[in-house]
Amino acid sequence: MARLVSWVEDEAPALTDVARLLAPHTGRAHVVGVTGAPGVGKSTTTSALVRHLRAQDRTVGVLAVDPSSPFTGGALLGDRVRMGEHAEDPGVFIRSMAARGHLGGLAWSTPQAVRVLDAAGYDVVLVETVGVGQSEVEVAGLADTTLVLLAPGMGDGIQAAKAGILETADVLGVNKADHPDADRVVHDLRAAAALVEREPDDWRPPVRRTVARDGTGLAELVTALGEHRSWLEASGQLARRRARRARAEVEAIAVARLRSRWADLGDVDLDVLAGEVAAGRSDPYAAAATLLDGLAAPAGGSARR
Amino acid sequence: MARLVSWVEDEAPALTDVARLLAPHTGRAHVVGVTGAPGVGKSTTTSALVRHLRAQDRTVGVLAVDPSSPFTGGALLGDRVRMGEHAEDPGVFIRSMAARGHLGGLAWSTPQAVRVLDAAGYDVVLVETVGVGQSEVEVAGLADTTLVLLAPGMGDGIQAAKAGILETADVLGVNKADHPDADRVVHDLRAAAALVEREPDDWRPPVRRTVARDGTGLAELVTALGEHRSWLEASGQLARRRARRARAEVEAIAVARLRSRWADLGDVDLDVLAGEVAAGRSDPYAAAATLLDGLAAPAGGSARR
Repeated sequence: MARLVSWVEDEAPALTDVARLLAPHTGRAHVVGVTGAPGVGKSTTTSALVRHLRAQDRTVGVLAVDPSSPFTGGALLGDRVRMGEHAEDPGVFIRSMAARGHLGGLAWSTPQAVRVLDAAGYDVVLVETVGVGQSEVEVAGLADTTLVLLAPGMGDGIQAAKAGILETADVLGVNKADHPDADRVVHDLRAAAALVEREPDDWRPPVRRTVARDGTGLAELVTALGEHRSWLEASGQLARRRARRARAEVEAIAVARLRSRWADLGDVDLDVLAGEVAAGRSDPYAAAATLLDGLAAPAGGSARR
Repeated sequence: MARLVSWVEDEAPALTDVARLLAPHTGRAHVVGVTGAPGVGKSTTTSALVRHLRAQDRTVGVLAVDPSSPFTGGALLGDRVRMGEHAEDPGVFIRSMAARGHLGGLAWSTPQAVRVLDAAGYDVVLVETVGVGQSEVEVAGLADTTLVLLAPGMGDGIQAAKAGILETADVLGVNKADHPDADRVVHDLRAAAALVEREPDDWRPPVRRTVARDGTGLAELVTALGEHRSWLEASGQLARRRARRARAEVEAIAVARLRSRWADLGDVDLDVLAGEVAAGRSDPYAAAATLLDGLAAPAGGSARR
């Protein structure tokens, strides 16, 4: 398992064969994105979710997508320690995903790692990622169910609305619910959620309180995640979301392969084009057109990598 | 000006000609990214920066990149009100950027809008964006100087480190510096910054305290931004950063054009390919290869859009 995920990160050549073999076994896991600003307790909540799901005898895969990885290549020690209690349990697989390459590396590799865990038979795949703004959008595209975590003292309701979380979240978790300001956060969230326009049949994200540290409210949170999954199936949204996800996956891989090809296009060199733009002798639109011409020209090589 | 920026957002056909005409006039503005988690006071700080730069008789363009726009299509009223004091000043141009299309729309259009303001002659272009994690990385690619804002009560030092800000920031601003916890935040930031490995000639991000609301510390913040710009020029990093930025711009436009082309590739339909993947009958790697084959094949149309 760990090797397969590494192959995904490294884009190992064998992966294309492996992906073909795995494909028929995918689509069974419930993929849950766990996101929220730094400090709300994402890792603690993820660990508590694992504990709870294991008590229900469900197997769990965890992918921790570390935002600092573009620079540092790895997660901080704290998270690993917190997850340590599951290290001996064969029903749990935990892996940090590192973005090894350029921007978009995680957008491309994380869903492929999810497919590996899905095909391996894990009942639930949790994808933990820091998210405010754009990265939440990515998680929403990746998961069947997106759990957005908030906590008291992390900015008020209008700030939450600004980050677009109300449109992204399928389930809202207010962690650190033993904090004196928790009631206000829950109240503000519910008030803001009521303002989001939805169709009568749409899912309305429930707000659940937790104290992940001691497990308070975890049963209710797991229930809410399960209810969303049931709604997805009953409403036909599951198939729609997964088709959309597959579309994004295919596109991300195609773009990643194009990028790697742009390095050796023969006559057309992206760095030379960029240099002309930086010097004011060309503009990005003209340079992009030249790049695309180079791609289609026979000199640019075959379409396969 | 406003129309040109709208053309960028809409990818109007006339834009390719406009971009060519603007190109020789770009490269003069100091492009400053202003980022930080929701609630730290980005808009207030941006407005205070504008006020301070105007007092120095420098013209300022502001692009507010709104993270909720993938869903709501616009900024909340609050920001507009706060910027209202500059509405009558011809030396200030303020614009909210909306991501009108799919993911990556802002990554593609924001740098082109920056080029418009740059060519128009604004001395400083401020790009305000919510950023924790990935979106900060984008701002770092966009700007000459990245100002990362923090505030007391928004999570502790190790959380800041997790979000990768210390590697991204050129200048660190601790806003709400009249808060009792501000000293601790400054202390933790300096301690964490000292742990980042840097070469002897590298820029070391200064930490500046501000109370943006009443202008405290703004003079020192503006000075720090200017010092970073001077260092960029003296060290040769400005040319390097701008070449890297141009590379990302060209690539983003090329990818956006490919995406729009993937809708009508004749034999190869991305939605059909995605459907096969979602059903487990194909895998994303195979589907991406088919997509790229379709792109290079003569049936796929010419390389120009």
